[in-house]
Amino acid sequence: MLGRVLCTVLFMGALPSPAQLSQGHISVVLLGATGDLAKKYLWQGLFQLYMDQVSSGHSFTFHGAALTALEPGQRLMFDVLKKLACPPDESPNRCAVLKDQFLKLSQYHQLKTAENYTALSREIERLLGQEGLQEAGRIFYFSVPPFAYTEIARHINSSCRPPAGAWLRVVLEKPFGHDLQSAQQLAAELKSFFREEEMYRVDHYLGKQAVAHILPFRDQNRQFLDPIWNRRHVERVEIVLKETVDAKGRTSFYEQYGVIRDVLQNHLTEALMFLTMELPANVSRAEEVLQCKLQAFQSLRRLEKSSAVLGQYQAYASQVQEELQKPQGYTSRTPTFAGVLIHSDSLRWEGVPFLLASGKALDERVGYVRVLFKNRAYCAQSEALRDAGHSQCKAKQIIFYIGHGELNTPAVLVSRNLFRPVMPQGSWREAAARSDLRLFGQALSDYYVYSPVKEREAYSVLISSIYHGRKDFFITTENLLASWGFWTPLLDSISHQPPRLYPGGVENQHLLDFEMVGGEVAFAVAEPEELLHPGRQVPSDYRTVQSTFRQRPLVSAWAEDLISRLASDMEEVARRSVAQRGQFHLALSGGSSPVVLFQRLARHHYAFPWKHTHVWLVDERCVPLTDTESNFFSLHKHLLQSVRVPYFNVHPMPVHLNQRLCVEEDRGTELYAKEIAALVANASFDLVLLGMGTDGHTASLFPQSESGLGGAQTVVLTESPVKPHQRMSFSLALINKARQVFVLVLGRGKHDITTLVSRVGQQPRKWPVSGVSPSAGQLVWYVDYEALLG
Amino acid sequence: MLGRVLCTVLFMGALPSPAQLSQGHISVVLLGATGDLAKKYLWQGLFQLYMDQVSSGHSFTFHGAALTALEPGQRLMFDVLKKLACPPDESPNRCAVLKDQFLKLSQYHQLKTAENYTALSREIERLLGQEGLQEAGRIFYFSVPPFAYTEIARHINSSCRPPAGAWLRVVLEKPFGHDLQSAQQLAAELKSFFREEEMYRVDHYLGKQAVAHILPFRDQNRQFLDPIWNRRHVERVEIVLKETVDAKGRTSFYEQYGVIRDVLQNHLTEALMFLTMELPANVSRAEEVLQCKLQAFQSLRRLEKSSAVLGQYQAYASQVQEELQKPQGYTSRTPTFAGVLIHSDSLRWEGVPFLLASGKALDERVGYVRVLFKNRAYCAQSEALRDAGHSQCKAKQIIFYIGHGELNTPAVLVSRNLFRPVMPQGSWREAAARSDLRLFGQALSDYYVYSPVKEREAYSVLISSIYHGRKDFFITTENLLASWGFWTPLLDSISHQPPRLYPGGVENQHLLDFEMVGGEVAFAVAEPEELLHPGRQVPSDYRTVQSTFRQRPLVSAWAEDLISRLASDMEEVARRSVAQRGQFHLALSGGSSPVVLFQRLARHHYAFPWKHTHVWLVDERCVPLTDTESNFFSLHKHLLQSVRVPYFNVHPMPVHLNQRLCVEEDRGTELYAKEIAALVANASFDLVLLGMGTDGHTASLFPQSESGLGGAQTVVLTESPVKPHQRMSFSLALINKARQVFVLVLGRGKHDITTLVSRVGQQPRKWPVSGVSPSAGQLVWYVDYEALLG
Repeated sequence: MLGRVLCTVLFMGALPSPAQLSQGHISVVLLGATGDLAKKYLWQGLFQLYMDQVSSGHSFTFHGAALTALEPGQRLMFDVLKKLACPPDESPNRCAVLKDQFLKLSQYHQLKTAENYTALSREIERLLGQEGLQEAGRIFYFSVPPFAYTEIARHINSSCRPPAGAWLRVVLEKPFGHDLQSAQQLAAELKSFFREEEMYRVDHYLGKQAVAHILPFRDQNRQFLDPIWNRRHVERVEIVLKETVDAKGRTSFYEQYGVIRDVLQNHLTEALMFLTMELPANVSRAEEVLQCKLQAFQSLRRLEKSSAVLGQYQAYASQVQEELQKPQGYTSRTPTFAGVLIHSDSLRWEGVPFLLASGKALDERVGYVRVLFKNRAYCAQSEALRDAGHSQCKAKQIIFYIGHGELNTPAVLVSRNLFRPVMPQGSWREAAARSDLRLFGQALSDYYVYSPVKEREAYSVLISSIYHGRKDFFITTENLLASWGFWTPLLDSISHQPPRLYPGGVENQHLLDFEMVGGEVAFAVAEPEELLHPGRQVPSDYRTVQSTFRQRPLVSAWAEDLISRLASDMEEVARRSVAQRGQFHLALSGGSSPVVLFQRLARHHYAFPWKHTHVWLVDERCVPLTDTESNFFSLHKHLLQSVRVPYFNVHPMPVHLNQRLCVEEDRGTELYAKEIAALVANASFDLVLLGMGTDGHTASLFPQSESGLGGAQTVVLTESPVKPHQRMSFSLALINKARQVFVLVLGRGKHDITTLVSRVGQQPRKWPVSGVSPSAGQLVWYVDYEALLG
Repeated sequence: MLGRVLCTVLFMGALPSPAQLSQGHISVVLLGATGDLAKKYLWQGLFQLYMDQVSSGHSFTFHGAALTALEPGQRLMFDVLKKLACPPDESPNRCAVLKDQFLKLSQYHQLKTAENYTALSREIERLLGQEGLQEAGRIFYFSVPPFAYTEIARHINSSCRPPAGAWLRVVLEKPFGHDLQSAQQLAAELKSFFREEEMYRVDHYLGKQAVAHILPFRDQNRQFLDPIWNRRHVERVEIVLKETVDAKGRTSFYEQYGVIRDVLQNHLTEALMFLTMELPANVSRAEEVLQCKLQAFQSLRRLEKSSAVLGQYQAYASQVQEELQKPQGYTSRTPTFAGVLIHSDSLRWEGVPFLLASGKALDERVGYVRVLFKNRAYCAQSEALRDAGHSQCKAKQIIFYIGHGELNTPAVLVSRNLFRPVMPQGSWREAAARSDLRLFGQALSDYYVYSPVKEREAYSVLISSIYHGRKDFFITTENLLASWGFWTPLLDSISHQPPRLYPGGVENQHLLDFEMVGGEVAFAVAEPEELLHPGRQVPSDYRTVQSTFRQRPLVSAWAEDLISRLASDMEEVARRSVAQRGQFHLALSGGSSPVVLFQRLARHHYAFPWKHTHVWLVDERCVPLTDTESNFFSLHKHLLQSVRVPYFNVHPMPVHLNQRLCVEEDRGTELYAKEIAALVANASFDLVLLGMGTDGHTASLFPQSESGLGGAQTVVLTESPVKPHQRMSFSLALINKARQVFVLVLGRGKHDITTLVSRVGQQPRKWPVSGVSPSAGQLVWYVDYEALLG
């Protein structure tokens, strides 16, 4: 049969030369040949490959495979194949011939048992032998559910590898795991069967023409982009995929994944990487691209709970109830909408917000990547007289329009006041003007608009790339794990967060709009509680409780509110000190509790008078300052590097002198005491921030050590029961001279000591914290509900 | 006569009570009573004052005065007075009576000689005596050219002061000087005649209703503005006064002043202050407002040449030629258009661009103060479905619309998605919607729009304020000098800069649009040279010359280009070092030459890898680090405080140990050498930046001192011939270990030594700089044209 087909091919218009013929034979095996994806895209993609490559010198056979028995499977598959279509520019004649050939080159196989795989491989060898053809390679396309992967992979590896000299390419469809751990596991399994270069993980977004053109665009327009593709010029970036459909009929899949795993972790993240990565010298070399991409992942700032807003369309819960046979009251926390704010700490992008958004049941179907540049111009001419091509006051944007939406075609748009882009002539052309249309706040005529000469399905592009071995169109294991590594902390932190409900479609109005504040996002409009959650109690923003603790003021709240209140109070003290005395002497403790506080101060208190603040350490571990164990190192990382405290005003403890740590003769304590005496009037700090350990220690003053608990010495060396043992610390005498002392206690782990300390008198030798009692200053306790109430 | 008038007043509708009557008499003397300003605004303002205050309990007389003899003067003045008009809401009856009275209360005086002033004062006393009236006060309004000020002031002070218990108010019209020095001189002269509280310096912009309402608006809307009136939320501020008229007929004044002195130094600066100043507790207390204003001046960053763009309408030169009888080829450098970028370094405003722009012969007449907030929202709904009142994606603005323009009325506009402002009910009301109008990129319906219930001329407002003693509507001496202090450095630096010529009106197109880049501004469109300056050579941007100096590469250019080139080269070396070794060890010299370089690095090199840079000092003066003489202090001020070098990577020289400076036994040099040895591989710095003194010294290695010129010691103590004598310095041995050394030489003062050093061999004991010769590294000389060519 094959021989006849090859003759037919030779008989046709596009004649392969004998040299081309010698390129050998390619067998394509489509696993899941009768599934949805195969029906919708893959067979068409394979047919397109055949049409494109029929005269490339390669010969082909196509093997559909599934679990179904031979006869019904064959029938199902050929029903699909009969519907294959040629592109409109193909002559009906040639189309009919090619389609006929393609059908003849296609076979169905039941692949269930190990024997089936062996039989398939033999069949391929037999065909080739019969025709005297050299084998070039085999493509196995996994269009099957992920649980089937390992089994199939094992069979292919053991029974279906081509002979030496021919290549093997296995094509994998997402999901590639559910989080970092499961992705690692799956990757490890696959690695035991295939080499990295044999695996082609599909993210079909990489086959979307507008997405695929991001890197080439950046490359071909380096001259224009080099000066502006950075944080000085880019205002923000939006990467968006909006859908109108909902998850109906797919909830069994969707309920386990949700929009972040379904769209953001893969499609939108890949687009993000193409935008943020440094441009390799050669953008078509997969290895260079991958290295730059991995570096770009490294620079992403860790996502927190507050980096995302989540929504769920209202009908989702009932769809889940119905499809998954859940009880009536069942609610789901699976988000069907997410908006995520991403920051990169690379030099190029520091501070630029990257907004990723996607959702189902929205008002329109559209996908785009939008780079908005900063408006830095003042236009002396009145608005009416400005023209788009020249006015620097119109918005400047570059948009990779993925498809659908009002434009309804893939496109690249560049504001006319930016530059006329260089586009590859054969594949993109300037689109006809449509004066009626407005996109992203501007008339379409304000942009240079380019669209593909030939629109191609993503899967056609990808199948062609598999054939050409273009690995840059696929997701490598490293890339995949980097992406899961980035998303998993967010997925973990939001797993218990109820999404905001939205009605769906245009009814959503402004319910899903969100805003950036500091490094966080929040919905812009308050939730109409009564509508969505009838009867639910509206919690007040601030549930801080004021009372007393050890006869001193107590502020108590849930940890997050407490930290926010403490930070505000600190700013208040700072401003008052600067107003009264021109400076603010702040002494900070080490430990883990203050880290969140430091971050909050760094990100939310823009008006904090850092320029006039002196930062001191209450205590320090005897390690070099650049050691990650150092209190100062942590303070620097979480606070100092983000604010502008003058160098002269930063006072780390001198634990490291003469190349050694906390040696008595080096007189570090004396040195620090002198520095304090020289700069802080009466050695009275404006604010000392303390914590409390489960053993009742505070600063680095421990129950087991006498040092610092009595006497007048201000800075002392102490011994901690835990490593690193040696410490330097403020003494109680120094602490109690302060104008203001705040003690921060967080977490259930502190409940017992909190209860105990609430009852005891002043017994610093037993519980050092009980000795904190400023002689002339104020003391306030900040204790969270968990520590206070257990 | 006066008695009869008072009776008439008593007879009228608004009856003053006897208690009110006892408030006494006010004499208003208008000097320059027949001049332009008086004709156009002042008499009308005085009449308005009379109408408003006729039943206040004060009685009035109005004395017009000028140099003109009595009879013609009288005639001229009464011609003006006859044209006085009542506001439209005044009944014609009352208007006629009031106008009649006002005329009867007004007299003309010739004021020329000392005797004239004495006579005037006697006349006032006579009138008062005759009517048995108590004197409340005297207002002298100087509507005369500035050269006449001193003379008139002397006469008033010596002859026209009211008796004890009554006040004196002298009202002064700008210009108040030409720069800081002349303003100080004028202020000193006036101070010898009047007390500060007696002087009312007019800036009529403070009488513009929209400008006058800025502070009350901020005060009354504190609840909304407090969280957003700062750098975190404000994107930019524009303060603009555009005129369509040109300077024709006024060039004799204009040619000496130009647009910056005429409009920016006073009107726009006052608006700027109202926006940027911290809000006093009580905004109507002049003293508090003044203090806050002065503080706001303190925070303004010094203006540089590159802070402004300048233009001149094309017809200006010929107008000057004609009006000032200048020769045909005469060109003027007086700007008739200016755009200035101002930054405040206050915590509140750091980084926010304030753009001031004004010009003559522009396309429209309009004045406004526009605060544009950052757009931080992402709107999930498609544009067509967003509504202005709720969508957070529409622009957020607050505009104080001063007048004219498309709105043609003073107004306050607040974007509806921001907040509904609190406005004083009696004086401002919501304006009727005009759906056709678009302002600042948005439909008028997107704003809450308020306009004054009663539109009032600025001069009416101000004259009323003089009467009420509201000094917050006037410019105090301190305020005036602060403003001149701010503007004078710019005026000096641009005095020789040719402005860009523009055709005028709508023809200007985009010629005057300008853009911000870093802290600078530049016209957005390149000048069409051929059109405006036919035949003029276009200089290339970069005129750096590359050659050799002492057998090493030499880069030479004009100072500004040279610095820019050096900074770029440094960034290049830094990036290469970080790419190769993960860090960049940079050693910087002190002195004045590097300051400009530091500033350039801080402001223009966003991509400099500061995070991975270690900063070391090549040399240091033996003073505390916080001393302004300290090299480190200067480095900190001009560079470190603006970039993000991690604390651990900053290495000041330890000149200050054990509370003393550079004492041999404290072993500071050893300490620094050890630090270098610990962190810098082979003590080979990636880049050492040096300068050269007129005596051939480099680093702090001096010809007179042997120290550091020979031997292997890396860090040494040296003696400088100039104060402070004691220094710490890298030795030649250490410098010559560097991978790269750049020597920067700037200015004509260095020409002789440059010439000398170019010829001598390696004689470090005579000329230390001649000993710079990296054994394995590269040396590049950066010498500007002045140093190289003299």
